[in-house]
Amino acid sequence: MSETYQGLTQLGHASAQPATPEQAVLERVPNPHAGTAYLVRFTCPEFTSLCPITGQPDFAHIVIDYVPDGWIVESKSLKLYLASFRNHGAFHEACTMDIAQRLVALLDPLWLRIGGYWFPRGGIPIDVFWQTGAPPAGVWVPDQGVAPYRGRG
Amino acid sequence: MSETYQGLTQLGHASAQPATPEQAVLERVPNPHAGTAYLVRFTCPEFTSLCPITGQPDFAHIVIDYVPDGWIVESKSLKLYLASFRNHGAFHEACTMDIAQRLVALLDPLWLRIGGYWFPRGGIPIDVFWQTGAPPAGVWVPDQGVAPYRGRG
Amino acid sequence: MSETYQGLTQLGHASAQPATPEQAVLERVPNPHAGTAYLVRFTCPEFTSLCPITGQPDFAHIVIDYVPDGWIVESKSLKLYLASFRNHGAFHEACTMDIAQRLVALLDPLWLRIGGYWFPRGGIPIDVFWQTGAPPAGVWVPDQGVAPYRGRG
Amino acid sequence: MSETYQGLTQLGHASAQPATPEQAVLERVPNPHAGTAYLVRFTCPEFTSLCPITGQPDFAHIVIDYVPDGWIVESKSLKLYLASFRNHGAFHEACTMDIAQRLVALLDPLWLRIGGYWFPRGGIPIDVFWQTGAPPAGVWVPDQGVAPYRGRG
Amino acid sequence: MSETYQGLTQLGHASAQPATPEQAVLERVPNPHAGTAYLVRFTCPEFTSLCPITGQPDFAHIVIDYVPDGWIVESKSLKLYLASFRNHGAFHEACTMDIAQRLVALLDPLWLRIGGYWFPRGGIPIDVFWQTGAPPAGVWVPDQGVAPYRGRG
Amino acid sequence: MSETYQGLTQLGHASAQPATPEQAVLERVPNPHAGTAYLVRFTCPEFTSLCPITGQPDFAHIVIDYVPDGWIVESKSLKLYLASFRNHGAFHEACTMDIAQRLVALLDPLWLRIGGYWFPRGGIPIDVFWQTGAPPAGVWVPDQGVAPYRGRG
Amino acid sequence: MSETYQGLTQLGHASAQPATPEQAVLERVPNPHAGTAYLVRFTCPEFTSLCPITGQPDFAHIVIDYVPDGWIVESKSLKLYLASFRNHGAFHEACTMDIAQRLVALLDPLWLRIGGYWFPRGGIPIDVFWQTGAPPAGVWVPDQGVAPYRGRG
Amino acid sequence: MSETYQGLTQLGHASAQPATPEQAVLERVPNPHAGTAYLVRFTCPEFTSLCPITGQPDFAHIVIDYVPDGWIVESKSLKLYLASFRNHGAFHEACTMDIAQRLVALLDPLWLRIGGYWFPRGGIPIDVFWQTGAPPAGVWVPDQGVAPYRGRG
Amino acid sequence: MSETYQGLTQLGHASAQPATPEQAVLERVPNPHAGTAYLVRFTCPEFTSLCPITGQPDFAHIVIDYVPDGWIVESKSLKLYLASFRNHGAFHEACTMDIAQRLVALLDPLWLRIGGYWFPRGGIPIDVFWQTGAPPAGVWVPDQGVAPYRGRG
Amino acid sequence: MSETYQGLTQLGHASAQPATPEQAVLERVPNPHAGTAYLVRFTCPEFTSLCPITGQPDFAHIVIDYVPDGWIVESKSLKLYLASFRNHGAFHEACTMDIAQRLVALLDPLWLRIGGYWFPRGGIPIDVFWQTGAPPAGVWVPDQGVAPYRGRG
Ligand SMILES: [Ca+2]
Ligand SMILES: [Ca+2]
Ligand SMILES: [Ca+2]
Ligand SMILES: [Ca+2]
Ligand SMILES: [Ca+2]
Ligand SMILES: [Ca+2]
Ligand SMILES: [Ca+2]
Ligand SMILES: [Ca+2]
Ligand SMILES: [Ca+2]
Ligand SMILES: [Ca+2]
Ligand SMILES: [Ca+2]
Ligand SMILES: [Ca+2]
Ligand SMILES: [Ca+2]
Ligand SMILES: [Ca+2]
Ligand SMILES: [Ca+2]
Ligand SMILES: [Ca+2]
Repeated sequence: MSETYQGLTQLGHASAQPATPEQAVLERVPNPHAGTAYLVRFTCPEFTSLCPITGQPDFAHIVIDYVPDGWIVESKSLKLYLASFRNHGAFHEACTMDIAQRLVALLDPLWLRIGGYWFPRGGIPIDVFWQTGAPPAGVWVPDQGVAPYRGRG
Repeated sequence: MSETYQGLTQLGHASAQPATPEQAVLERVPNPHAGTAYLVRFTCPEFTSLCPITGQPDFAHIVIDYVPDGWIVESKSLKLYLASFRNHGAFHEACTMDIAQRLVALLDPLWLRIGGYWFPRGGIPIDVFWQTGAPPAGVWVPDQGVAPYRGRG
Repeated sequence: MSETYQGLTQLGHASAQPATPEQAVLERVPNPHAGTAYLVRFTCPEFTSLCPITGQPDFAHIVIDYVPDGWIVESKSLKLYLASFRNHGAFHEACTMDIAQRLVALLDPLWLRIGGYWFPRGGIPIDVFWQTGAPPAGVWVPDQGVAPYRGRG
Repeated sequence: MSETYQGLTQLGHASAQPATPEQAVLERVPNPHAGTAYLVRFTCPEFTSLCPITGQPDFAHIVIDYVPDGWIVESKSLKLYLASFRNHGAFHEACTMDIAQRLVALLDPLWLRIGGYWFPRGGIPIDVFWQTGAPPAGVWVPDQGVAPYRGRG
Repeated sequence: MSETYQGLTQLGHASAQPATPEQAVLERVPNPHAGTAYLVRFTCPEFTSLCPITGQPDFAHIVIDYVPDGWIVESKSLKLYLASFRNHGAFHEACTMDIAQRLVALLDPLWLRIGGYWFPRGGIPIDVFWQTGAPPAGVWVPDQGVAPYRGRG
Repeated sequence: MSETYQGLTQLGHASAQPATPEQAVLERVPNPHAGTAYLVRFTCPEFTSLCPITGQPDFAHIVIDYVPDGWIVESKSLKLYLASFRNHGAFHEACTMDIAQRLVALLDPLWLRIGGYWFPRGGIPIDVFWQTGAPPAGVWVPDQGVAPYRGRG
Repeated sequence: MSETYQGLTQLGHASAQPATPEQAVLERVPNPHAGTAYLVRFTCPEFTSLCPITGQPDFAHIVIDYVPDGWIVESKSLKLYLASFRNHGAFHEACTMDIAQRLVALLDPLWLRIGGYWFPRGGIPIDVFWQTGAPPAGVWVPDQGVAPYRGRG
Repeated sequence: MSETYQGLTQLGHASAQPATPEQAVLERVPNPHAGTAYLVRFTCPEFTSLCPITGQPDFAHIVIDYVPDGWIVESKSLKLYLASFRNHGAFHEACTMDIAQRLVALLDPLWLRIGGYWFPRGGIPIDVFWQTGAPPAGVWVPDQGVAPYRGRG
Repeated sequence: MSETYQGLTQLGHASAQPATPEQAVLERVPNPHAGTAYLVRFTCPEFTSLCPITGQPDFAHIVIDYVPDGWIVESKSLKLYLASFRNHGAFHEACTMDIAQRLVALLDPLWLRIGGYWFPRGGIPIDVFWQTGAPPAGVWVPDQGVAPYRGRG
Repeated sequence: MSETYQGLTQLGHASAQPATPEQAVLERVPNPHAGTAYLVRFTCPEFTSLCPITGQPDFAHIVIDYVPDGWIVESKSLKLYLASFRNHGAFHEACTMDIAQRLVALLDPLWLRIGGYWFPRGGIPIDVFWQTGAPPAGVWVPDQGVAPYRGRG
């Protein structure tokens, strides 16, 4: 494995699942294509957290798009970070925005957006959409294309 | 209008919406193709009732298939009957089965089935499927083909 | 053109649109594969008739499946026959069954079925499904596969 | 529960279903991410009101997108507010616009839009689309992606 | 019924189907939300006219979007107007444009567009798309989203 | 609430989320339609457990169909039971079969089946399908209709 | 290449496109899994022939399923055979049945079926379905699953 | 038929299929809505040509959008022109561009674009997209919406 | 890890990718639900092998269904086995059948079937379907539901 | 074959599969439509490479769009080049970007973009999107329209 990955603590190691988002160690490596404005999309249909009021589980389909600048996120650490919300109590908006803002703090990307597509509660799902601002000029940003909630029929 | 329809009280009249399923007058006319075993499908994506515990509204997509014998249901009276559940409190299973059994009582059909596809509560939708027995031999009974509940993503 | 088609009055001729189903001349030719039990499907998404009560137009998507015996229907005459319902007032069930029964009378097929998928009235579409009996053993009869009515969302 | 929610009268209480939109108490809490322009989408496939002319039920699939400024809507109160149209007679346009304008009055959002996708009447569904103006620059506003009305076939 | 509707000749009356587009009385009422730029979509999957050359029936799926100014179209009169093309002979482009232009003349809307999605002839369907110009700034104009013609397979 | 529900410990009470499947109290009530062979479908797209080897989270979409005999499952207790697998480590087959067999033990149904549609691991998802035997004669058992795994493209 | 393929005249050779079905040399090789009843499906969405009356081109999507006995068809020769209909004038039924019967003659399979899904003419597509009889017991014969003709909308 | 069509040689006549694109007579008539910038879409899923290297057939799904100025193409002549590529050998790009450029030469339209969606060769389909430049301001140009190539699964 | 897994050589170990199917060690463990006839489905959209004639890569989407008897396949070893075809030259039928037959030899299951959905060559994809015989009575065997090949458009 | 193709080493020759991307000879020919800004799309659902860390196979669906200037890529050489990644170890981002950048170096196109849609690892697929900058003014660049990753359900 190249030097780039030598400081990493999780990739290529057996890693315990972090118990909270705070304990999760989100790691970064230098962007191997720094200077080229490309977009990376992570699709995570396996996301769950807890309702901060009732403690009942919540579920979401999360899609993250970002244009790296000097750093990219190491993907195993991202996976463990997302899984660390499993026992974390927070509202839909807070979970979605926290993920985005932690990535922004870690990576200082040229641009980032997140779509949080939450399962319905009370018959009404909530989706949360945020981006750091207008996409950088000239970068290709496809639709996330997640199917809208349909109900039945 | 032919004699067949002369006893009807709702078709071709301004009809007040019945306040309860009990008040609804479900009407029938002689089967114009008696002796021919054909299937009629009514699809009602506009169904709502009330939760008997909380009084909150419930919604369903209802599909009714039947093979008439001597009688067919008059469709305007069926529409009014289905709409009469709007202020009726009952569980999903009860609403679905009540509709089916009232039609069976009225029509004494060769065969009938109902699919009740209810909107999710607590993240889990309930579907109710009932038929009066195996379909009559030689009758064509297509799938109802209602999309399964998908959640998100 | 082969002798088979010599008696036909419409195929290969300019044909006026018949004004009523009664005036329509539904024609047949000998089954070129008589003795082989194959199924022919006609899909007609362009069907319209009139409501016998109000005179307002009705629309349907009609699919006809049949297994010919000695005769097959000449398809131009079928097209003109279906179009002849344009100014014909009849209920959904009657239109659907009339088409099927006229074809049965003309062709005396080994088997025939019809699916009439009508556009909604009062929020509730009606579908009519009929077949002459169980399909002949060994004949391949695929689903018609017409999308169920969805409403909105 | 945090102080933010202490003034709320419905969340975490047993709440009677309000009888009319006027009686519904639509509540707000401070935007926990004020200063960050994100979009929240509520999808409500369970909406019904009454025709003001005939008293017959109407149904719609409603999608609301908004970019909060100082306030966000409390979602249980939104659910009860939407359900309060159940016995309210109003035209499609009026229902759709009333919901939007009440939310605007309550929240003074940076931006809001509503899509009302109504079930067909007379064979023709009506959709109503409104937004408070062009979306704020740099905010991500995905398509609502609701399937168009198809009819049959 | 409010005063607004008092001059109307069709809504709330038994109305004979007009025989031609010329005979159809397309009616308007004052825009109840004048001053608010919202979009209304009518989807009409039940449209038929006649080929001006052959007299054979043509079919189309028509979608109309408009942003009202001082007037809105009364929807029952629109339905009857669209149905009045049933015995009208005109090319696809002419039917589509005539509908649009008659609505523009009646309503003087802020903006209008029409999509005419015609059924195939000679294996090739024709679609006609027209709008009165660029949409007004700040108005939300979703895709019509009609499925493209697929052929088979 | 009717007497039927009086012995229940969870429905209509604030219920703590059970920590394990063993601690979960799955409750039943008498079948209100005993003697009528109908099918009930629960769709649970929000299911998660842990890998017994690695402790990493697993996800599944679970669909349960059953034909009650004397008892039906109380649905809030079912929801809590399914959620109790959140910190439970077991293989896909074991989770799926355990759910089915616990329901069988509780309800002694006429028939039951379960489909467990698991998210991919190592690029290959596993689905588990089990039923208690051939469906009872004359009962209507629709396809579960869950979309097959597609991968990408 | 194994001996099996030594007698073949087209596979592994530059092969001129045969001008007619008669000139096409459809070749066979011994079934490498003789004694095991498996099904092979060829899907050919690229099929065209000529109308025997007008000389205009016709198009079809053809799917062939067969259970080989002693022989399998060599697939390059099948491709050339199907392409040889390009200048061949025949009705839809004849083309479809000819392909099936030539394969039956060549291969003497345990079972064969063909689905011919033709593009619409006069607004009405024709599908032709034929099989040699009921499928052999114990052989797995999935639906061909070709999308039904939809028209527009 | 109106004077406009009097010079036409194919519409309303029995027309032999032209043998080559060069022999095809593509005809035009005056734009009946000259001065109104509308878009016309022709969808042709029935297109075939020959590979110039191997002589093997190629297939494509072709969609043409244009905004007429003084002329519109006569659609029967367009159909015959497209069919005239049947025995024409040319690369995918050349066929697609030739069609577009011949229409531009004939019609001098305000704008034109073509999408050529070719069937895969070597496992990789090629699509060709061309337009005469940016669409004219204010003209409505919907997506062509052709499904992307999926492969299998 | 339980004793059951102690003899395994690959699960929980770093495992080199086997170079050929022959070198791949397909492992089994005792069926933990022996005596219960359930079905397990593996979906592998990531399969590739080589053409035995040209050496060019082939691709397939493979779905395996089986009803275990005394043994189940260890899934990591299955994944490695499927990947071992990467440099293996064999025809579509042979690859598909070899996989099935090796599993049958290893597991001696109550029943097994395989669907091999291969990417098109020469414009025509081949699917291979095989099962060990009719499914055991009372076992639930859902459709594999893989989308049919569509071509373009 | 025209002179243009005379220098090519692979088209029309039997070509061994290159063992690495470095050994692959990507060839170009003069753009036959130089001066016309059209877009060419290659869709490759058959792409595989190796993980540089573990040596396990990776799979992707790759779509390349470019607007040629003086050169176009010869498509057989492109196919062989893409296939040459089969035994190449590289990260998802690197494979995707390498393909794009090699094409840019070879062709010096007016514009190019690539979408790499990778199969999930650890439950989370990665997509990579890059373009050389904003598309040239006036060129038509349709969405790639690849279905988003769905997970299950
Ligand atoms: Ca888009
Ligand atoms: Ca719905
Ligand atoms: Ca079915
Ligand atoms: Ca849903
Ligand atoms: Ca089926
Ligand atoms: Ca969009
Ligand atoms: Ca769009
Ligand atoms: Ca089915
Ligand atoms: Ca099926
Ligand atoms: Ca339609
Ligand atoms: Ca679009
Ligand atoms: Ca795929
Ligand atoms: Ca099925
Ligand atoms: Ca096609
Ligand atoms: Ca788009
Ligand atoms: Ca899902």
